[in-house]
Amino acid sequence: MKKLVRFNNDYNHGAHPAILKALADTNDTSFGGYGQDEVCEAAKEAIYKYIDCPEADIHFVVGGTQANILMIEAAITKKFESVICADSGHINSHETGSIENMGHKLLTLPHTNGKISAEQIAAEAEVFRSSPLQEHITEPRAVYISFPTEYGTIYSKKELVDISAVCKEYNMYLILDGARLGYGLASPSNDVTLADITRLTDAFYLGGTKCGALFGEAIVITDNQMKRGFRSIMKMNGALLAKGWLLGLQYKTLFEDGLYFEITQKAVDYAKPIEAAFKAKGVEAAFDGNTNQLFYIPSEAQIEELKKGFVFEVMDKVDDEHRMIRICTSWSTTYEEVEALVGAINNL
Amino acid sequence: MKKLVRFNNDYNHGAHPAILKALADTNDTSFGGYGQDEVCEAAKEAIYKYIDCPEADIHFVVGGTQANILMIEAAITKKFESVICADSGHINSHETGSIENMGHKLLTLPHTNGKISAEQIAAEAEVFRSSPLQEHITEPRAVYISFPTEYGTIYSKKELVDISAVCKEYNMYLILDGARLGYGLASPSNDVTLADITRLTDAFYLGGTKCGALFGEAIVITDNQMKRGFRSIMKMNGALLAKGWLLGLQYKTLFEDGLYFEITQKAVDYAKPIEAAFKAKGVEAAFDGNTNQLFYIPSEAQIEELKKGFVFEVMDKVDDEHRMIRICTSWSTTYEEVEALVGAINNL
Amino acid sequence: MKKLVRFNNDYNHGAHPAILKALADTNDTSFGGYGQDEVCEAAKEAIYKYIDCPEADIHFVVGGTQANILMIEAAITKKFESVICADSGHINSHETGSIENMGHKLLTLPHTNGKISAEQIAAEAEVFRSSPLQEHITEPRAVYISFPTEYGTIYSKKELVDISAVCKEYNMYLILDGARLGYGLASPSNDVTLADITRLTDAFYLGGTKCGALFGEAIVITDNQMKRGFRSIMKMNGALLAKGWLLGLQYKTLFEDGLYFEITQKAVDYAKPIEAAFKAKGVEAAFDGNTNQLFYIPSEAQIEELKKGFVFEVMDKVDDEHRMIRICTSWSTTYEEVEALVGAINNL
Amino acid sequence: MKKLVRFNNDYNHGAHPAILKALADTNDTSFGGYGQDEVCEAAKEAIYKYIDCPEADIHFVVGGTQANILMIEAAITKKFESVICADSGHINSHETGSIENMGHKLLTLPHTNGKISAEQIAAEAEVFRSSPLQEHITEPRAVYISFPTEYGTIYSKKELVDISAVCKEYNMYLILDGARLGYGLASPSNDVTLADITRLTDAFYLGGTKCGALFGEAIVITDNQMKRGFRSIMKMNGALLAKGWLLGLQYKTLFEDGLYFEITQKAVDYAKPIEAAFKAKGVEAAFDGNTNQLFYIPSEAQIEELKKGFVFEVMDKVDDEHRMIRICTSWSTTYEEVEALVGAINNL
Repeated sequence: MKKLVRFNNDYNHGAHPAILKALADTNDTSFGGYGQDEVCEAAKEAIYKYIDCPEADIHFVVGGTQANILMIEAAITKKFESVICADSGHINSHETGSIENMGHKLLTLPHTNGKISAEQIAAEAEVFRSSPLQEHITEPRAVYISFPTEYGTIYSKKELVDISAVCKEYNMYLILDGARLGYGLASPSNDVTLADITRLTDAFYLGGTKCGALFGEAIVITDNQMKRGFRSIMKMNGALLAKGWLLGLQYKTLFEDGLYFEITQKAVDYAKPIEAAFKAKGVEAAFDGNTNQLFYIPSEAQIEELKKGFVFEVMDKVDDEHRMIRICTSWSTTYEEVEALVGAINNL
Repeated sequence: MKKLVRFNNDYNHGAHPAILKALADTNDTSFGGYGQDEVCEAAKEAIYKYIDCPEADIHFVVGGTQANILMIEAAITKKFESVICADSGHINSHETGSIENMGHKLLTLPHTNGKISAEQIAAEAEVFRSSPLQEHITEPRAVYISFPTEYGTIYSKKELVDISAVCKEYNMYLILDGARLGYGLASPSNDVTLADITRLTDAFYLGGTKCGALFGEAIVITDNQMKRGFRSIMKMNGALLAKGWLLGLQYKTLFEDGLYFEITQKAVDYAKPIEAAFKAKGVEAAFDGNTNQLFYIPSEAQIEELKKGFVFEVMDKVDDEHRMIRICTSWSTTYEEVEALVGAINNL
Repeated sequence: MKKLVRFNNDYNHGAHPAILKALADTNDTSFGGYGQDEVCEAAKEAIYKYIDCPEADIHFVVGGTQANILMIEAAITKKFESVICADSGHINSHETGSIENMGHKLLTLPHTNGKISAEQIAAEAEVFRSSPLQEHITEPRAVYISFPTEYGTIYSKKELVDISAVCKEYNMYLILDGARLGYGLASPSNDVTLADITRLTDAFYLGGTKCGALFGEAIVITDNQMKRGFRSIMKMNGALLAKGWLLGLQYKTLFEDGLYFEITQKAVDYAKPIEAAFKAKGVEAAFDGNTNQLFYIPSEAQIEELKKGFVFEVMDKVDDEHRMIRICTSWSTTYEEVEALVGAINNL
Repeated sequence: MKKLVRFNNDYNHGAHPAILKALADTNDTSFGGYGQDEVCEAAKEAIYKYIDCPEADIHFVVGGTQANILMIEAAITKKFESVICADSGHINSHETGSIENMGHKLLTLPHTNGKISAEQIAAEAEVFRSSPLQEHITEPRAVYISFPTEYGTIYSKKELVDISAVCKEYNMYLILDGARLGYGLASPSNDVTLADITRLTDAFYLGGTKCGALFGEAIVITDNQMKRGFRSIMKMNGALLAKGWLLGLQYKTLFEDGLYFEITQKAVDYAKPIEAAFKAKGVEAAFDGNTNQLFYIPSEAQIEELKKGFVFEVMDKVDDEHRMIRICTSWSTTYEEVEALVGAINNL
């Protein structure tokens, strides 16, 4: 049987070979436990070069849902506080009620291309501020956004500056989910740097699982209140890895020479020929993300044809004959795989 | 200064005089604690006459938010389960995130006149049932509706039958918030009985605070799974009143001779002349509830005029010149108060 | 059948007649909702006279478990924080895991006569402070004590001063459960005032349910951090009574002329002849509380004899032939009831 | 500077070389996400050979605290339920209140050599069963034990059979923390098999992190109620690894040819010469565990001497001159390291 090529997500391969090599090279060395070791320190140093914020705290955890739980737990100071997010936000739509499970209400706003605006956020925060009955509703304490969003779009620098200002105005923390941050930064449409994101948010994570690591996310916290007791929050939630150096080692490998940026750039570049092929074939784009995630609306017949050679995500029906699909390139995608997919699209 | 007349809600007076008398008559008697006493038993007997379900469990608690917390806590069996409700539902809009605080996600549906339909509920439940990735989303376990709704409307018997059937089909509990149940049953549009509600839901509460009691709500549970450990849930949430007979005494007084139905009927009747006056004046109704809550859309100028003599709830702006208001009659409203308000509306 | 006299607790009667009268006198008056009314303000003024702390916040709630939940929720700032208490403390032993249900660990210390010492508390707090692995254990943020304790004993002023100092030293809030505070203050052994308790704690509640009210507890908060959003915490936990003035009215009645102190003093005085009778009969005391709760260790035969005329709490076996019992006098106990019990003890 | 040899724990090295090789061999292969892949299936097959229970569910997670959180979450059906454990149990002493954070009370029993007995457990469960006031206390629903315990001791088959019977009698789930299960099974004192443990418990985990894996724990669930929605509980708690096959691959490697048992046996064997050296030197053992963890009570001077060449855990003071220490061998310990430590002990 012919092996299908996976374009269904960006976490279907192990790790960049340099990471496996680093694991092998250190396998005979012993380390201190729970992330207090020299490798984690080196990894943080490597990241500090890019975020331009030496006073930030950096913590490494295993996965993205975990990172979101921890950052929001660190932001919330009282249980009557809530979190503003897009209805399409991962914490609302795909994390099994993890935030509510911790006791916190989400105030969801309708997304536009996966994004929410500073105006929307301000209006929601104002509901509480101007309410004569504040004790009957929750107080927004944090705003959660994804970069890139769940639909592969990115916020512009101006949009982030505006959202950040609204958060400050309403005394809310800005938390950014960077599961695919590398792909967002690599977008030709992007105008923000890692230092911008660090400066404009109170906490974010720099995704590794989807960007070349075996697993792992680096949480960067700049707000002093949010820093307090973060390792306790990690341990309490089962997120303090015993062999913490395994995470440090991966981030050291990805960041000390810019490998992270190089491999995510390649994935975004590889998306371009696929986009061009869909366009040439007249298949409509659902979102213009310009990152490694492509959302197109082929016919059901075209989808069936593509399924013969490729795995990809088949999503909601758009009309009786069409359906949205998601195609992801990733750090592990090869040029041959891209060529094969382009060829298949051309033949639709 | 002229004393303003309160039409702002249905909980601005103490209790029906018969209740105060019952309190005085028993004040020299000693009782067992925590609701295990002969008065609570008598109150339950009085309620059983109306609900036609001798195997139901009945528990008395102090307030409505408490009742909602307890019923939902009894319905949820695992933390990845969620509750479907209208976006206008009290648990979503006015209870400070109490359900999320307990760890449970609300799946909100857009309301129509305060109501949600069996079709909407089925569609939401189907999202989970048909999902290939069920572990990434919550499993709806309960549906919460209000009768009357937060906008004074009521579900018809057919609507309740349909919703109940959907709940059974999707293995969800149907929970009904009856904070103003007496006023709903008294509506000229109403075609359901207390026995219907008991039969069609798994748990509901029969509101007392807004219907003639000093305070108190009677929770009726018909589902056997939901019955388990309910008193433990009450105690754990600080809702097991030490002097439980105080609640029993009030329900005994309200239900043994039908006083509950008599006084809520009067309040609904008293709403009619007010509705007629608004109609005659050409003020638009926002909702046609036919209960004790009236939602109208006067001009800002008319609102200012009415404020000179009356207290009522001023709500959202509808357009630049108009705003929605809520006017409540209640068991304690006098005919003189109604006449005064009608006169004021006529003079607008 | 002869009616048994209840000495089983101090919440088996309605309310002091002055409270019922106040309810009747105001029953035709309308009030603002949720405790924002002039009666609550007057009640607070009456309490302020005794606590000597005009900047304290005062909130009225219905019951003691509720009050404990709310105060601790207000004290905890992060979920990895815990609460130190006696193993005999009500929150540990009789509130169905309510504190853990909110997510907070209790660190229990072995009690001595229902009390814990400043030394014990300091030692427990020091475990965290001196731990090299703080993120693996919880950080104590509050200390909970009861006055009087669950065994009817009271802390001396020196003991409270010492505990308060330890709390300050270790950055922990001191929270005092005053369900029976009136009886403690009335003890002949007592050397603290309400003003002392206000000054030495960060929050406490002044029990009403067991001290002459129909129901109700007054929470007094002096710490500014704990004050924040307290009404939101109340609403979120179903503890914001719609007809809040009912609570205010009771506290106004109890405190504006010192009725609270008068009726609890009487109950403590009435305990004395009972103690004397047990002593004369050679029945051993389990605790020397000097409040309204008496703990004695009669033989099983004596217990059976007393049960013929009286209801009281039969507790743990002490040896094969003896068992501890609890007898409570209360604000509602009559002199005739005391005489009857004394007579029965004399006849054992 | 001389490199110190780490005997401080059993998680200070990466992974057995066979695991690194397996990672490298599969790095160019793509897999399905979230543990639904052929490698995880093969790993489960390998484990099924040992547990003799084809109907058990097996799930792979990253760490031990996570595994405990998930198993207990799966066991608890209502929030008023609690978990019985030893006061020395890891969930009580070293996991930052993680269980209480989820809302569940721990009922702790004093340990003997790290263990609790069937009699103790029955007595605690009986407190609830025989209470006339059940709604005021929590209902024990699960019993948590560690094998080996936190002090390196193990339960005998008879002890497990008895505890299991008590759990059945009182309708409680038996949950076993097997972070170091391999070392326990390898103990010369051990008389239970993996199949025994599977049969006698409702859920347990088979530790990987400390037994040769890079990271990972395999949760085995035999109770049908506990199986329901377990993947949802995982996702909700951030414990569903995106690249789940990484866990499967490790367990496949450890279990398909018995490597797990071989390497943990070696570690237990390597502990023997160290024990003999301490014994010869007259240093007292704190616990006789017979696993890979050694607890001894050297003098402070001896401790200082050993610290010159080795890292180990220095624990509580026993008297003015002595202190307990913990020394762990592990799958990664070499014979040369053992010889070095034995030499150092001989020279004390």
